Formats: sequence, C-alpha cells, structure tokens
Amino acid sequence: MLHAVIMAGGSGTRFWPASRRRRPKQLLSLIDRPLLRATFDRILPLVPPERIWVVTTAATAAATLELLPELAPQQLLAEPVGRDTAACAGYASHAALRHDPDAVCAVLPADHVIGEEESFRNVIAAGAELIGRDGGLLAFGVRPTRAETGYGYLKLGEGRAEAGAWTIHELERFVEKPDAERARRYLDEGGYLWNSGIFVWSAAGLLEELRRQLPELAAGLVRIADAMGTPSAESTVAEVYPDLPRISVDYGVMEDATRRWVIPVDFPWSDVGSWPALRELIAADEDGNAVHGPSVAVGSANNLVYSDGPVVALAGVRDLIVVATGDAVLVVPAEQAQRVKEIVAELEARGLDDVL
Amino acid sequence: MLHAVIMAGGSGTRFWPASRRRRPKQLLSLIDRPLLRATFDRILPLVPPERIWVVTTAATAAATLELLPELAPQQLLAEPVGRDTAACAGYASHAALRHDPDAVCAVLPADHVIGEEESFRNVIAAGAELIGRDGGLLAFGVRPTRAETGYGYLKLGEGRAEAGAWTIHELERFVEKPDAERARRYLDEGGYLWNSGIFVWSAAGLLEELRRQLPELAAGLVRIADAMGTPSAESTVAEVYPDLPRISVDYGVMEDATRRWVIPVDFPWSDVGSWPALRELIAADEDGNAVHGPSVAVGSANNLVYSDGPVVALAGVRDLIVVATGDAVLVVPAEQAQRVKEIVAELEARGLDDVL
Repeated sequence: MLHAVIMAGGSGTRFWPASRRRRPKQLLSLIDRPLLRATFDRILPLVPPERIWVVTTAATAAATLELLPELAPQQLLAEPVGRDTAACAGYASHAALRHDPDAVCAVLPADHVIGEEESFRNVIAAGAELIGRDGGLLAFGVRPTRAETGYGYLKLGEGRAEAGAWTIHELERFVEKPDAERARRYLDEGGYLWNSGIFVWSAAGLLEELRRQLPELAAGLVRIADAMGTPSAESTVAEVYPDLPRISVDYGVMEDATRRWVIPVDFPWSDVGSWPALRELIAADEDGNAVHGPSVAVGSANNLVYSDGPVVALAGVRDLIVVATGDAVLVVPAEQAQRVKEIVAELEARGLDDVL
Repeated sequence: MLHAVIMAGGSGTRFWPASRRRRPKQLLSLIDRPLLRATFDRILPLVPPERIWVVTTAATAAATLELLPELAPQQLLAEPVGRDTAACAGYASHAALRHDPDAVCAVLPADHVIGEEESFRNVIAAGAELIGRDGGLLAFGVRPTRAETGYGYLKLGEGRAEAGAWTIHELERFVEKPDAERARRYLDEGGYLWNSGIFVWSAAGLLEELRRQLPELAAGLVRIADAMGTPSAESTVAEVYPDLPRISVDYGVMEDATRRWVIPVDFPWSDVGSWPALRELIAADEDGNAVHGPSVAVGSANNLVYSDGPVVALAGVRDLIVVATGDAVLVVPAEQAQRVKEIVAELEARGLDDVL
C-alpha cells in the first residue's frame, strides 16, 4: 500500500522573523494555509490519514498535531533532535513497515509549494506503481530553468521503464549542489533535473540501503524499531536518536544506491528557499508589490511585504523585503536577503532569544 | 507671579505610526520621557504646579493627567476641539487671571525638544521680569542655521531693553513661513530669528490684544471665563469653544500687536517637526544609525529606527526611516519622510481606523 512520509523537521532561519525556533517554516502560512497543512491536504486524496506519517521535532510536535487534527498521535514521529533526512526517512520506514510489510512510501518535504495538485498525485501514483513492481529508489526531478547552485541535480540515464502514462528513467548520477560553472554546464547540456526532495521507495528497500550504506544509522534505527509499541518506545528514541549519524538521504543513500530511478515532473514546484523566492509565488499588484497581510504603499514598487498582523506602510521604496510580526520587523533589499542569517547570528550574540 | 501655560493640544500625523489620534506627538517618548512630561519638568524649578496650566484636547485629557500626577485636575484645561493657539492662549489667560490678577504667562509648546534647561529657565525668568515691568508681548527667537521655510521669522527692531543679563529687542516685524528665496534672504541679511513658539506676556495684556484684534474670539472667551468655577463651566466650554475663530497667536495676535519684544535665545531648540528632525536629535552609532528601541543592524548606515517594542532588524539599507509599533510599521527614505501624510490619507481612505 502507498504511505506518505511528510518530513516536517525543518528549522531554518531564512524566514526570520516570521519563522522562529518554535514556529519553523513549515508551520507558516506563506501563501494561504501553513505549508505543512497544504502538503497534507495535497496527498490526502491519494493516501488516507492512517497511512500518513509525519516526522517532526519534539519542539513542534504539539503545533503539528493541532494543525493536522485528522492525524492520530501515533502517526506523528517526533525526533528529539533533527538528524537530517536519512535518519528521518529510516525512522518513518520502520514505523510504516510495522503496519504494512509491503509499504511503499512517498517522501514529501513539508515546506515546499506545489501547484497542479492533480498532476502531482498522478505522478506520485505512477512512481508508486513502478516501485511496487520493480523496486529501487525513485527521485522526482524538476526541469531546471536557471543555473541554480542551491539544488542537487539528477542526471537522466539511458534505461527506461513505464508506469501509467509516465516514462521513468534510470538515474545515472546524483550530483550535490554544483558551483556556478557546473550548474551552467548542466543547464546547457540538458539531461539534468533539479532534485525536488520528493522520493518514492519501499520501506523495506530504503532500510536495506541504510543497512548497506549506513550500518551505524541502520543499527540505531533497529533499536528504535524494536521498542516501537512497547513502554520503552519513547525512552529508546530519546536515548538512541541524538547519536544517529547526521547525513542526508541525498548524500548518504541516493549517491550510491543500487537501483535508482528518476521521473521528470511538470507540476509547478518551489522549495521557497528564501524571502525572494516567496515573492515569485505571490501575485504582485500593478506596482509589482507582492503583499501578504495588511499593507499600504505609496510610490513604492517591487517590494515583498509579509505581515502576520501589523499594518505595513511603505512610501517611496523599491525592491525591499519588509517582514513584520507583532514583536519583530525585518527590512532588507531583496538582493541581500541572505543577510537574514547575519541578523539571526547578531540576535543570538546579543541574547535576544525572545524573538528567535 | 509667573505662570506657565503648556500648549498640549497638538494632533499631527507626521509621527505616524508612533503617534495616533489618541496618542499625539507630545505624549511620545521621542527622546527619553514623553515630550509633554519633559516640558513640564523643564519649567518646574521656576513655576510650581499650582501655577502651571496645561491646555489639551478632551481626547488626551486622561492620558495627560496620568502623565502629570502633580497637576491638580482644575489646572488642566481641556478643549472640546482644537481651535489653534489664539483660543488656547486666551483660554489659559482667563484661567490664570482668575487666580492671579498680575499673572505673567510663559507659553510653552508641549512637543519641542530643548537643551541646556538652566539657560532656558534663566531666559524665561528674564522675559518675565521685562513683561512684568514694561508690558507687551515677548517672543523667543532662535538663531537660524539654514534657510528654513517651515518656521515663522522674527525681525529684530532697533529698540532695546535690559532684563537681568539679557538684552531684549523690540520686535520690528513678524513674518509667517516664507518661501525659499525670502528665507535665504533673511539668513543672508541677518537680524531675523526663527519663531520658537515660546512667548511671555501678562494674561491681562494678551486678553487686551485679543479684545482689540479678535473681538469675536475675545467675547467667546469671556463667556467661558464668566462660567469658570460655576456648575455650568463645562457645558459653557462645550457650547462656546467649537465656534471660536480658528487662528494662531502668530497670525492673529503677534503680527499686529501694539508692543512687541523678541529675545534671542541660545539654548538648543528643535520643534522636532518630522522623523528626520528626530534623527538629528538622537546620537547615532558608528554607522550613523540613530536608534530608539530594540534593534539590530548589519551593513546598514544612516538610518533612523524608532520602535516602541518590536525588535527592528536592518540589513543592507541606508538612509531609511523605519518605525515599528506592535500593530503598524513604516518604511520610508528619510528624504521622502513627508510622504507619511499620504500614508495616513490612504489608511483613512481604506478605513483602517484601528491604526490611526
């Protein structure tokens, strides 16, 4: 049966001040609903709640359950601390496998924005059909539109397979974030796709790859799995999880997996990696201002305004990102949005933890 | 005896979003204390509370009394609606006169910033000495440092008088806000001072000028004065005050007063007429950022940050004014600060009264 694993353990700072330690990006309503809620709703027509597993951190577990009332508490897997996606995927695979020895898992980042949801579900279903039939690990690739250095790339191989109306390629190579020159070459050569972070694999197949490639991680997860459903489940996770190797599925599994597939997808996709990326997703007014929340602007153009309450008033400014919450405000030119990291570092250095 | 009349009826929009309809500029702690409190504290060593009269609007009466607990409620004169400074000064003159037929009044705007307070009090005392001895209306003039078009100008006359260590000039001419060319000429010619809005006159002397120059206003004020201390005092003010002619002391009284003086003052003075004017008064950090309230800045210079609570974070911006309250945020380049009026008009048009 098809299960969904929603990876909701993110804790970045790129959306400060909207995002906080206890309110990471996936809980923010960057477009309409909280991104996690949108991810849940998107897969729901294909996978019922009792086969959806949400992996999150202890700090956001309560907020996550509140956001997803359909989710039974035992479907929520809380990591005591984040140990990157290989641990997360393995943890969820064990949970799914306990309920369904034939579980095929669609692994979904909780904090992406995806359009054409019908198309999204169709391609997930096709991927699940392939994996159920032929096995292996399937990555979902997005056609690149620019020489982006922030994503991993998937090189399409020669071999093909069919699933439903889709042609699925063997994955020849998995390349982590390239430099600008290589990104440019990939774009020019063709045959490379962006790694969307979405995967389909069987729970058993993923765990087999972990055993082979990351034996220490696999052993730790077996201890956790053995305790599942027993009174010591929680204490075992608390004891074992923090010491699991910290590595991503991309580096730790996909780069050297035995049987790998990639499916090119056509649905609109964004990982919304920054405030400027959000600006691209919000319909702008006639002056090019993309606005979320109450705002007035005079003589101002091409700004992003994001407010979760305060009225933001702009006069005579261009190309700014202005973010306002009740207790913190950010003002930065769009082209320097990455400096929010410096801001967060400065707030930490000054002990302003109330707004972190 | 010397009385003080603090004119605290202001209700501008130039300090939005810090200022609101119910929290006008004089109630804001633009520097350290609320400006009204600072004005009160500044005159207190010279004039005891029982001879201080504070004229304010009904909307801010409660907040004003809370800010000035030393002030007996009967010393607070609440205007049902603002009718400009001639009515305000006349109203306070009647109140002072009822208690003291020889009252000399130092009239003080509540929303200015003044330094060297000892010097300020010395020159007020000297002015009071002159007026008590020679009569007339005395204006306080600030030496101009630029061809400012936002102030009235006072032309020094030939005649002189001495009071204490001060030389006081006859006022030859009172000129309301000039255009740029005339302002430049005044600066070049010399002999012109900015009108600070501070005056000293006897209560009886001012009322005599009102009778002569503004008989309708004077008659209305007499009705109010006749009801003072009677059960109908409040209702008389409510009935008469709104119909009083709306005119300033500058235009309505000083331009044609019979006997006028001007004293050049040397204490640091600012009417803090705008956010950029406030920037000049706040000591800037090494990057030229003037900051009031919690803030962090990276790669940012020459900004004014004013927050009454939220942490304001700037990255990579210059010459901006950023003002944050819990429910509203303003971002505007300093050189376009006057556009806050457009913002307020837009908020009104859109019915966003909660933040006005």
